[in-house]
Amino acid sequence: MIKVSVMYANSADVKFDIDYYCQTHMPLVAELLGDALKESAVDYGMAGGAPGEAPAFVAMGHMTYESVGTFQKAFGPHAKQIMADLPNFTDAQPVIQISEIKM
Amino acid sequence: MIKVSVMYANSADVKFDIDYYCQTHMPLVAELLGDALKESAVDYGMAGGAPGEAPAFVAMGHMTYESVGTFQKAFGPHAKQIMADLPNFTDAQPVIQISEIKM
Repeated sequence: MIKVSVMYANSADVKFDIDYYCQTHMPLVAELLGDALKESAVDYGMAGGAPGEAPAFVAMGHMTYESVGTFQKAFGPHAKQIMADLPNFTDAQPVIQISEIKM
Repeated sequence: MIKVSVMYANSADVKFDIDYYCQTHMPLVAELLGDALKESAVDYGMAGGAPGEAPAFVAMGHMTYESVGTFQKAFGPHAKQIMADLPNFTDAQPVIQISEIKM
C-alpha cells in the first residue's frame, strides 16, 4: 500500500480554509477517484516541535492507494479538475510526496 | 485526537535505516509511551509529486494521542532516551509537527 501526502507549506499570512478542504475538496477527490482511493486523512497544523514554533505545514491530506500505478491511473484523468480547486481554499504551495506504508 | 508527525528531511546522501526504525525505534517509543500512544504509522519516502523528483522526506512517523496534554505528559519523561536513539538510524534532521486530526 502507498500513501500520497499533499502537504501545504505554512507561512505567516497563509490562507487555508480547512472547512472547505474537509467538506468540499476531499469529497470531490473521493468522488472522482472512486474505488482506487482506499482511505483519506486530514491533519490540521497546530504547532511545531519546539515551544512557540509554528507548524511546518498548515494542513496535510493523506490518501492511501493499492499501488503507485493505481494512483496514477485514477488521478491522471482528474488531475486538472482537482488542482483547479486549490485556489478555492488555499494560496499555499503543496509539497507532494508518495510513500510506501511500512506500518 | 491529535497527531505528532516526525518528518525526516531527505537529502542526496541521507542515512536512514528503515528496518531499525520500524523494528527497534518505533517499538521503543511504543513501550515507553504506553497507553497514551493510540496509533503509530510509518511512511517511507518513494518519490515527489513531479516525475523524477525525490521525496521531501526520507521517512515520516505519525503517532496519535488523545490530546496535546496527553502527549506531553507521556513523552516528556522519555524525550531524552527517545532522541538519543536517533543517531542509531539516521543523520537526518526531523521536522516535528503537531496536528489536529480533522478526518
